[in-house]
Amino acid sequence: MGRKRLHDAADGRPTVHTVAARAGVSIASASRVLNGVGGSAETVRRVREAAAAVGYVPNAIARSLQSQRTGLIAFAVEDIGNPVYVAMMRAIEAVVAESGRQLLVHATSGQVASETALLRRLAHRYVDGMIISPIRVTDSHVEAMTASPVPVVVIGQLPDAVPVDNVRTDSRTGAGLAVDHLVAGGRTRVAFLNGPLDTVPGVARDAGFRAAVARHGMSADLIEVGDFQYAAGRAAAERLLARSRPDAIVCANDLIAVGALHALLVSGLRVPEDVALVGMDDTELAQMSYPQISSVSLGSEIRGRLAAQLLLDRIADAGLPPRREQVPPSLVIRASSGGGA
Amino acid sequence: MGRKRLHDAADGRPTVHTVAARAGVSIASASRVLNGVGGSAETVRRVREAAAAVGYVPNAIARSLQSQRTGLIAFAVEDIGNPVYVAMMRAIEAVVAESGRQLLVHATSGQVASETALLRRLAHRYVDGMIISPIRVTDSHVEAMTASPVPVVVIGQLPDAVPVDNVRTDSRTGAGLAVDHLVAGGRTRVAFLNGPLDTVPGVARDAGFRAAVARHGMSADLIEVGDFQYAAGRAAAERLLARSRPDAIVCANDLIAVGALHALLVSGLRVPEDVALVGMDDTELAQMSYPQISSVSLGSEIRGRLAAQLLLDRIADAGLPPRREQVPPSLVIRASSGGGA
Repeated sequence: MGRKRLHDAADGRPTVHTVAARAGVSIASASRVLNGVGGSAETVRRVREAAAAVGYVPNAIARSLQSQRTGLIAFAVEDIGNPVYVAMMRAIEAVVAESGRQLLVHATSGQVASETALLRRLAHRYVDGMIISPIRVTDSHVEAMTASPVPVVVIGQLPDAVPVDNVRTDSRTGAGLAVDHLVAGGRTRVAFLNGPLDTVPGVARDAGFRAAVARHGMSADLIEVGDFQYAAGRAAAERLLARSRPDAIVCANDLIAVGALHALLVSGLRVPEDVALVGMDDTELAQMSYPQISSVSLGSEIRGRLAAQLLLDRIADAGLPPRREQVPPSLVIRASSGGGA
Repeated sequence: MGRKRLHDAADGRPTVHTVAARAGVSIASASRVLNGVGGSAETVRRVREAAAAVGYVPNAIARSLQSQRTGLIAFAVEDIGNPVYVAMMRAIEAVVAESGRQLLVHATSGQVASETALLRRLAHRYVDGMIISPIRVTDSHVEAMTASPVPVVVIGQLPDAVPVDNVRTDSRTGAGLAVDHLVAGGRTRVAFLNGPLDTVPGVARDAGFRAAVARHGMSADLIEVGDFQYAAGRAAAERLLARSRPDAIVCANDLIAVGALHALLVSGLRVPEDVALVGMDDTELAQMSYPQISSVSLGSEIRGRLAAQLLLDRIADAGLPPRREQVPPSLVIRASSGGGA
């Protein structure tokens, strides 16, 4: 980096003094430009040229070399178009902001390669920690999480042996709550529209639905599987209506439920008079629909807040034992299954 | 940093060789652990201890010191719960991923302090560039953008003198398209539900609505103002219906339109028979509603893609002159204003 200069730090690094001297401006002016708070066009130009010439290292990078802290927290989610993740993100952000840090969000499309690439990127400490909510958990995920030098918190199911902080809910029980409610309301032909069966939530919700209908002595033949999306939900409901006539439908998330509502209304069926409908995740989509859709809450905001708190605790104390938090599901009854609103 | 050690780089920085030698493992093993691709628990422990002991600097930070490139692009948006920004984000991400970079998203809640804090943070080069879509543009925004050492692209209106790459649309004309369509369909009492008048889109859409109704010889007395949100749209429509009986409503975005639809249906009015409805932004919410909602497209995906391309061009060549791209609005007619679907 050249010879030792006047104004350099003790270790030879150029400082704001070095830059100011070279640019021929005051230290205050150089500092303003280097910290991005402006200055006249001419001052900005001279300070930038001087900084480049002396190899000035921006503060944050120099600081992160010393403290290895960035002040950033990452949240990696499958589908930011799903309002359940927006609710989770807002809860995480409130806790993160409270701690003086900033949140950034990665959308992974649920692709294993994309998620593990992000986890491996943690080796470069570009953030102080990551909250991730993978809908599939592979060996690659587990390997990358456990190898990460910065803390990771998982929202979702995780094998018990994995020593990673974890917030989970119980959507299996949640699917059962929906079936129980519909049966209590006199429905006898309860259908289920699910997401993919190679995902953690898909498997749990399938098991919950099947166990619940069996408990009520009903058969589990009214099941259609698609993606966790609006269009897939609408298509699944159309396939269902083409082959049968249910009097109630449980949907594995609210996007599917909104798609199913659309298909029901288009085919001239009334909700809830002809077909009752229950979604899952209790997102704002359920409230924005007409009629409003009953939905199984899986505590998305509470899970987000807990995950953020676990992460901040872990950043403060790496020696804590791995922790598990469990958030129970609950049912929010609205007009689509005979409730008030 | 202590004395020069065997295996250190020429400049005295510890290398993976330094770490491997200290940990007593192969270079391949040390490299795997340091890059976050795993290893046995014992190897991981030994390599991490050795890296800490010698003060090993992770590759990305070392690389970013040399190249000052992070491989990350930021997208800062007001409200990631608004599907228009999700559509924009997906378009940006496709271009960013194509270039081998990763996208991260910041939600700013439209707060000036939060947006300018992010822009100032760019002085620390934590990303290679930022795309920002502020709904208010203050002097602080302009100052922080022009002072940033990494490129910024703005999606939205920007004073012409600001030397920053910019992608804009014309929502003033867009609001006019909605009014023209409703008047052509025979509507004579056209109302407008807008967002705040201290925002760039609020002002443009208000001007467009007023100019259009004046063109048709109608008065502009059926206007209600709230936030750009579902609940505000519903409340604004309720206020409107309490004082008047429009036969058509133009909404300043789709969230407001979905809220208005809800209020109309709850009050027993039919859409489009009694009241026709047109939203703005042409998001998936408009298609997910029943009836589906006509909406003015402002080319959110095209704007996202163009912004990402401008940013990558600028990263490749800082000497380019500032560029402006203009995306024209267009009307998508659906059932809520008498269209087919």
